[in-house]
Amino acid sequence: MEVWFTEDQTNDLRIGCRVREVLFSDVSPFQKVAVLDTVEFGRMLTLDNVIQTNLKDEFVYHEMITHVGLNTHPNPKKVLVIGGGDGGAVREIVKHQGIERVVHVEIDQMVIDVAKKFFPELSCGFADPRVEIVVDDGIKHVKDNKGVYDMIIVDSTDPVGPAVGLFSEEFYRSVFEALTGDGLFVAQTESPFFNSELIKQITATVNGIFPVTRLYWAVVPTYPGGYWTFTMGSKMYDPKTVVLDEAKIAALNTKWYSSEIHRTAFMLQPFVKELLPR
Amino acid sequence: MEVWFTEDQTNDLRIGCRVREVLFSDVSPFQKVAVLDTVEFGRMLTLDNVIQTNLKDEFVYHEMITHVGLNTHPNPKKVLVIGGGDGGAVREIVKHQGIERVVHVEIDQMVIDVAKKFFPELSCGFADPRVEIVVDDGIKHVKDNKGVYDMIIVDSTDPVGPAVGLFSEEFYRSVFEALTGDGLFVAQTESPFFNSELIKQITATVNGIFPVTRLYWAVVPTYPGGYWTFTMGSKMYDPKTVVLDEAKIAALNTKWYSSEIHRTAFMLQPFVKELLPR
Repeated sequence: MEVWFTEDQTNDLRIGCRVREVLFSDVSPFQKVAVLDTVEFGRMLTLDNVIQTNLKDEFVYHEMITHVGLNTHPNPKKVLVIGGGDGGAVREIVKHQGIERVVHVEIDQMVIDVAKKFFPELSCGFADPRVEIVVDDGIKHVKDNKGVYDMIIVDSTDPVGPAVGLFSEEFYRSVFEALTGDGLFVAQTESPFFNSELIKQITATVNGIFPVTRLYWAVVPTYPGGYWTFTMGSKMYDPKTVVLDEAKIAALNTKWYSSEIHRTAFMLQPFVKELLPR
Repeated sequence: MEVWFTEDQTNDLRIGCRVREVLFSDVSPFQKVAVLDTVEFGRMLTLDNVIQTNLKDEFVYHEMITHVGLNTHPNPKKVLVIGGGDGGAVREIVKHQGIERVVHVEIDQMVIDVAKKFFPELSCGFADPRVEIVVDDGIKHVKDNKGVYDMIIVDSTDPVGPAVGLFSEEFYRSVFEALTGDGLFVAQTESPFFNSELIKQITATVNGIFPVTRLYWAVVPTYPGGYWTFTMGSKMYDPKTVVLDEAKIAALNTKWYSSEIHRTAFMLQPFVKELLPR
């Protein structure tokens, strides 16, 4: 018998993965949650039938949504992660010795439970004493905490369903206020091949709120088209020109991120540059 | 009615594209040739059911397999293209005014005919008076022409079927001999996520033949995983350290390639660096 998982990446584009076993499938108050054992990518988490992460390529996304900002800010101590209940971002953050507190706000308890049970490789950071897990709405948490965080990471699903509010101007304004005076945030912001209007809109919005707005990129094979972007809004530090601590970065033991890749990630192709605010 | 084209990118990974119309489908002496009008990517060429190119993302591959080498060699005059019957590589090469002659050796007449009829956006370079199209075996052509070319581009299909010989040590030795004293070649060399052993093997082989061996990368959304590599073997010039002619590059009117992207393409992630010869 052949079992395949198929995701509609767009209306007109699909990815299919051969499945050894469906390890978990349930419906939370927010979404359908499933864990698949795939032949090509190993264990895979899907939410509402969209691939979130998998053991083969997760390192790219999790290293790039965390270390770029953490090495731009000279001394990040308090970090907030919104979404990303799989734990991959938290695992990377706690590699940084200067971090004093990581608040991880995930709206869906089921995702956290599934991560603990099926993805110990990702959720291992949850055990770090500096990490506090809060099951709550990230939008509310950001509104209720002003001037608290050195860095905020928006590790959201796509801008449909529960994550829509995480792509709004109102939310980015709340993020600005939740940051300390020299804080910065990073959000995942989709593909320039398939979501170019969204990237235009987000970078323009962030540019209207933050003194420094930067788009950067990496390749996540299981996301549509592979080419994936992140947007940083920063009150003070510029990730393009920051002097990197090479020894500290080498000690992170990463597979995608490096000081070279930090710099490279901000070099955008002409067709991507066209999406940015003038 | 819904019509979908599905490619098995690996045994365990598939891509599916919604099809408006099948414009052409036939069998040549070498392979199955098809042209599809897809909703997501526009017109698409497939060979033996594998996506070769499409109007939406072709610019990435064609710009990167040509301009990196053409801007590394200070004065390329004679260029050989093996494979790539769609014409996209030739279109980019003839943008360079110093080019005197482009010999395009494609084994399959049907691919050339299909490119002329269905892909004028790619095959437009065929009309340039400097271009000579030769329907022949690229391996044979390289053996028969020694010391002739400043640059050789190996625009092959995957290393199965008719293209197997284009990934062999014997072929790379013939390429070395077909080049002028300061010549260089570029070949497409697959994905580090899915073909890491092949990349190891090719870079080691080329490194045993050429004084300079360099792996570089780009993102082609319709190729497995998006992250795609190219390998350059060069007798003299190093693409990593060459001083680029910024004005000349800006005039190429490219969407992916730029002088910044030329330099960043050689910055490899730690997991890719591990594949290179020590």
